[in-house]
Amino acid sequence: MVVHDIIARKRDGFSLSSTEISFFIQHLIRGEITEEQAAAFLMAVYIRGLEEREIVDLTLAMAYSGKVMDLSFLPGVPVDKHSTGGVGDKLTLVVVPLAAAAGVTIAKMSGRGLGHTGGTIDKLEAITGLRTELSETEFRKQVSEIGLAVIAQSNDLVPADKILYDLRNRTATVASLPLIASSIMSKKIAAGSAKILLDVTVGSGAFMKNVEDAEALAQQMVAIGRGAGRETLALITNMEEPLGYTIGNALEVAEAIATLRGEGPRDLEELAIIFASEMIRMAGLGESGAQRGKLMTLLREGKALTALRNMVIAQGGDANQIDDPSLLPQAAHIEAFRAPASGYLSHIDALGLGEASVLLGAGRLNKGDLLDFAAGITLRHKVGEFVTEGEELCLVHGEDSARVNMALPGVREAFVITREKPASHKLLLGRVE
Amino acid sequence: MVVHDIIARKRDGFSLSSTEISFFIQHLIRGEITEEQAAAFLMAVYIRGLEEREIVDLTLAMAYSGKVMDLSFLPGVPVDKHSTGGVGDKLTLVVVPLAAAAGVTIAKMSGRGLGHTGGTIDKLEAITGLRTELSETEFRKQVSEIGLAVIAQSNDLVPADKILYDLRNRTATVASLPLIASSIMSKKIAAGSAKILLDVTVGSGAFMKNVEDAEALAQQMVAIGRGAGRETLALITNMEEPLGYTIGNALEVAEAIATLRGEGPRDLEELAIIFASEMIRMAGLGESGAQRGKLMTLLREGKALTALRNMVIAQGGDANQIDDPSLLPQAAHIEAFRAPASGYLSHIDALGLGEASVLLGAGRLNKGDLLDFAAGITLRHKVGEFVTEGEELCLVHGEDSARVNMALPGVREAFVITREKPASHKLLLGRVE
Repeated sequence: MVVHDIIARKRDGFSLSSTEISFFIQHLIRGEITEEQAAAFLMAVYIRGLEEREIVDLTLAMAYSGKVMDLSFLPGVPVDKHSTGGVGDKLTLVVVPLAAAAGVTIAKMSGRGLGHTGGTIDKLEAITGLRTELSETEFRKQVSEIGLAVIAQSNDLVPADKILYDLRNRTATVASLPLIASSIMSKKIAAGSAKILLDVTVGSGAFMKNVEDAEALAQQMVAIGRGAGRETLALITNMEEPLGYTIGNALEVAEAIATLRGEGPRDLEELAIIFASEMIRMAGLGESGAQRGKLMTLLREGKALTALRNMVIAQGGDANQIDDPSLLPQAAHIEAFRAPASGYLSHIDALGLGEASVLLGAGRLNKGDLLDFAAGITLRHKVGEFVTEGEELCLVHGEDSARVNMALPGVREAFVITREKPASHKLLLGRVE
Repeated sequence: MVVHDIIARKRDGFSLSSTEISFFIQHLIRGEITEEQAAAFLMAVYIRGLEEREIVDLTLAMAYSGKVMDLSFLPGVPVDKHSTGGVGDKLTLVVVPLAAAAGVTIAKMSGRGLGHTGGTIDKLEAITGLRTELSETEFRKQVSEIGLAVIAQSNDLVPADKILYDLRNRTATVASLPLIASSIMSKKIAAGSAKILLDVTVGSGAFMKNVEDAEALAQQMVAIGRGAGRETLALITNMEEPLGYTIGNALEVAEAIATLRGEGPRDLEELAIIFASEMIRMAGLGESGAQRGKLMTLLREGKALTALRNMVIAQGGDANQIDDPSLLPQAAHIEAFRAPASGYLSHIDALGLGEASVLLGAGRLNKGDLLDFAAGITLRHKVGEFVTEGEELCLVHGEDSARVNMALPGVREAFVITREKPASHKLLLGRVE
């Protein structure tokens, strides 16, 4: 078998055999396929596509290109939760302790943010001292003891994805559903959880801009899960406006804590209940439809917050910041952006605010950029509310006025005020299993 | 303008503007586009194609990516002749001195061979001492004085093609008509001749395997010539069996010399007359239909051979080898391959004999491989002739019996003997202008 012929077959629109796909990935990680050959292959896949069987083969070849976690030592059924990313998307920070408080085992690996979408690992690191790089022994011990750990993806997992992901950014081959689906699912499979709950976000602040694309991606990922013997459910959620009221790492941690206390925004709490209910069902701990009351109690009684607190302590973080979020990093300069007119807030562009947050230092333009954990944006209103001219629409948090001024033009563009009240939008747009 | 967006636009099937194409090529030669980006671009071009205007733009951007020869100092109209390559294709060695003897100015740059197709430069270098790397001053002086020079392409011409050609070999993007056409024509345009005569070969021993593909390639190259203001004519010729009776560098030089003496094989002489007639017309020296008698006279009277001899002397080669071709490099070991049965020779596979010749050392498997100038194959018969079992079909020339034995299996496969006499084939299959 020759690399050249595999590239040529995909170039000409043929299906690749399982052997060809695993040959390609094996040679890729051994450095026996050059970057230019891999780039040509990716472009051929982008244009010609992959059929379902090929996507499953590619994902498995990638997942098994490095270490695969074995979580079978755990007494419970570990359930993973993954989001395709969004602006102000702190859902994981809420769902994961909430589900853990309900008895679901969670041994989760997460990523860092790039561009306008944040990453759970960055948000957790806003908590002073919290370690996200645990050894495997530490990770297993923590999950065994408290049933919950969220750490950065270990470097020895899915080396093939690291090579391809990096290459896709440089070669205009990112926005390919099979490549996105295989990248996400290979990491989920290698991370070892038996069940996988996916949040496929759709809208301005998400990677998928319309429901059709989101459904197609969800279907591909669920099919991969099926092919890999991992029960997978995808929920399609709205990411047209930011989730909750905050964007920025420490700001989102504070909002997650409030939600875990039962004092969070309606949209965030609602999605957290829906996702935690599904995780309980997937773990074999009850019907998803019957969990709402129990979960609300866990929030109200502080049990969900305790689960987060225990995880923070186990990972070396400052628990005082969980008890008193005002101790989390705070920006030196906070400026209000005010409504230029009276009317209904008909649109808050998540992408625009996400990009403004990157300029504030809350996100990365390039891999390796340092973050300002305190930076970000706090909304004062959500879409559908009536605002009066001069009223605060949001607060912009930065290290100084220069930074804040860099972000303001983007912030200004993100708000649309109209005379008519906009139609209300649904949070949950679909379900694929 | 961003490289990423140019790749993405071609990926999505859009046409690229002239500005985008020249931006891409300019950045490529400055090293500001990485090989993996260029590979992704080439694959997108391979699959999506280029429209005629884009091909012309690409070719001109490539041609002007380096030095462009200025031949306007010459009194005559310089006419270039190029072949897309074949097995035993020594036509240039015959046509060019013949046309020069008829008064056509020829300032030609040629390439080396790779794989089963030979290169004119390699063949010329079989003549002891002959230099193919001339300085520009030497080149201009020689053309001014004797009206004829054939040298290796100068390194400062078409740097963009060097990068892309090398990359295409590694990324399964060679067999793309727009990329082949732009690669060939960019070199022809940079080499400076006002008129370009193309030999588009078709058949087993050629790059184009059928007449339709050859016509499509010819049309694209002629369109480029038109777009670049260079009158271009393409003749489509048969390369199913090797041209003439010899394959191998010194063997082909000897056969070219015989043809220039009026003692050559029918097919080679016939094509030489056709091509030289067109070059005379393109140079403005007469109607192509009226040249046959004059050209036959130039051959018979030795004037065409004198033109080659003058060129060989001017480039430092040993003229004694032109006068007595037995002085050219000779193989130490020559073995006959005999007919396994009696019947009509219905097929001599040019590709098979070309590949066998590479094994003998007459051609290169890899760029930079050293050649055995004496190695090769001499046919005893051509397609259509009746042969008797045990009769010699060809002689195999190599440095020792081990080499010859390596080539014999391929030689054996190349000959097909049948009871029925095969239909005769045409030499000239089409004309595109």
